[in-house]
Amino acid sequence: MTVVSTWPRDFPGLGISAQRLCARITELSEGRLTTQYFAAGERVGAFDSFDEVASGNANAYIAADYYWKGKHPGFAYFTSVPLGMTTYEWNAWIKFAGGQALWDEMSGEYGLKAIACGATGTQMGGWFNKEVNSAEDLKGLKMRIPGLGGDVMAKLGASPVSLPGGQIYENLVSGAIDATEWVGPWNDYFMKFYEAAKYYYYPGWHEPATLLDNFISLKAWESLSGDLQAIIATANAYANSFVINEFNANNNSSLNTLINDHNVVLKKFPDEVLNNLGGLSGKVMGDLAAADSLSREVMTSIASFRKQSIAYAKISEQAFYNARGLPFKWVEL
Amino acid sequence: MTVVSTWPRDFPGLGISAQRLCARITELSEGRLTTQYFAAGERVGAFDSFDEVASGNANAYIAADYYWKGKHPGFAYFTSVPLGMTTYEWNAWIKFAGGQALWDEMSGEYGLKAIACGATGTQMGGWFNKEVNSAEDLKGLKMRIPGLGGDVMAKLGASPVSLPGGQIYENLVSGAIDATEWVGPWNDYFMKFYEAAKYYYYPGWHEPATLLDNFISLKAWESLSGDLQAIIATANAYANSFVINEFNANNNSSLNTLINDHNVVLKKFPDEVLNNLGGLSGKVMGDLAAADSLSREVMTSIASFRKQSIAYAKISEQAFYNARGLPFKWVEL
Repeated sequence: MTVVSTWPRDFPGLGISAQRLCARITELSEGRLTTQYFAAGERVGAFDSFDEVASGNANAYIAADYYWKGKHPGFAYFTSVPLGMTTYEWNAWIKFAGGQALWDEMSGEYGLKAIACGATGTQMGGWFNKEVNSAEDLKGLKMRIPGLGGDVMAKLGASPVSLPGGQIYENLVSGAIDATEWVGPWNDYFMKFYEAAKYYYYPGWHEPATLLDNFISLKAWESLSGDLQAIIATANAYANSFVINEFNANNNSSLNTLINDHNVVLKKFPDEVLNNLGGLSGKVMGDLAAADSLSREVMTSIASFRKQSIAYAKISEQAFYNARGLPFKWVEL
Repeated sequence: MTVVSTWPRDFPGLGISAQRLCARITELSEGRLTTQYFAAGERVGAFDSFDEVASGNANAYIAADYYWKGKHPGFAYFTSVPLGMTTYEWNAWIKFAGGQALWDEMSGEYGLKAIACGATGTQMGGWFNKEVNSAEDLKGLKMRIPGLGGDVMAKLGASPVSLPGGQIYENLVSGAIDATEWVGPWNDYFMKFYEAAKYYYYPGWHEPATLLDNFISLKAWESLSGDLQAIIATANAYANSFVINEFNANNNSSLNTLINDHNVVLKKFPDEVLNNLGGLSGKVMGDLAAADSLSREVMTSIASFRKQSIAYAKISEQAFYNARGLPFKWVEL
């Protein structure tokens, strides 16, 4: 099985997880299903991955779905939705609340089968070379921000661009872009963005949960026996849980390194900015749903599950975070 | 491979997930590793599962580790730690921050190999037949609450008991216990606790993340070839992510059913109660760490990772939850 990818070779988290997934499929199948993995640029450029598989030249790609919103606007939904849901909520929607069926329908139109293969957790808001004190400060900014987050920024008057990971640094350093978001401290540290931008903003309003995906040619998928399909599905679930744990385990120490060794200034977006972005996110979702009936169906399904997720988070994880913040003393080390 | 369990046959979430895990191992191995699964009471009683495997009578069990704190006090740590960490934080600690090595060391003393196979997410605080307006109201209460949460309740002057799932309802209805916690709305609904207790409290301070585990006899584990070990590890990761998604997808609608159809009253523990329980949790952690050197090592590792998790949650997921609560209008349905 030939697999192409949007991620650079050996890139921590994203790239290594894709490579691990391919290796695990070969291992679990005892070699009955071998995989040849090509990182971004090794066979085709990152953003040619979709066409490479849809055209039948390769059997699968590993990517983030919002890179393909030019193919179908609805693809943007499946990676992350601004001010939408957390990773657990998102995975629950995909798996048990109608997400997968809608995703299959959309990908099926291109001869593809979609499987979730990872998540980054709540991302960071991005790197800026000046402070963001109001929504006004974002106007006119040229920022690398793909997917629906980019559409929201455009509505605000910024100029969003989509660039694969391997091209962001050079554009930021040259000044071709003023700002960028990528993932979170662990991944961003390796990108050396701190050399060109000093302010690191949170939270990642645009990507509260970011889904990584593995798309397989439907023709290749349907030619596999049931147990090989089970092996692929199980290996994807394994890769999915592995990488989110890896992000969570490494983000905080990388953040400390960025702050202490590279003089990065950590800042929270002011509530006024977040509130503006939230309202515009709602408008972007509405516009997109008006584009075609399948997008509308996806939007409605997400909005409905988001509503109940908000209600439940308030009495579960969010309530726990609040309780953990009470002044009690836990244990001394 | 003979597998026993603490979960009732076909019990949603916990039980079905254990059955799914066993079936998947057989499927992925194309029958080279068959599993015979026995639910609680089918081969041995729920709380005899540990001995059944440690003695060599069965090859593996699926359970929650805090049931075995009588074997080693340190086992209590591995299921959940009061006011400790969320599911993502917990899994990151197990997988990438030293948790698994400590867990292996502790289980190795009993000839066992531990693997995480599931999680419930942040649990609910429990079912009470009177309001809890102050920490004083918990004193003297006879409550089913296993693990470290039970130890905290004991320190407060309550009488905690540990009962397997299949025995809680009858004890609550008969009045042998005054209160109980179990999991969350989806699982608790099937238990019909609402017939005997009206008040349903949140958050689950005692189990902010609850790990479900699969323990395999070390002897059986070491006799397996590398690819069969990989199949077991991958199937566990698959079961792990499957069940947490299932809980998340179902909890909110079950909560609505409990409130609307069964007149359950949803209440938040007052901050004074949570703050008291938080301080006592710290004391319980300290006491336990003083018991023996391995417990101390586990405690120190958890406390250290918890500290950085708190710092990171504040700028990532927790900050996102707060941003989502701003007054902006998202999308109309």
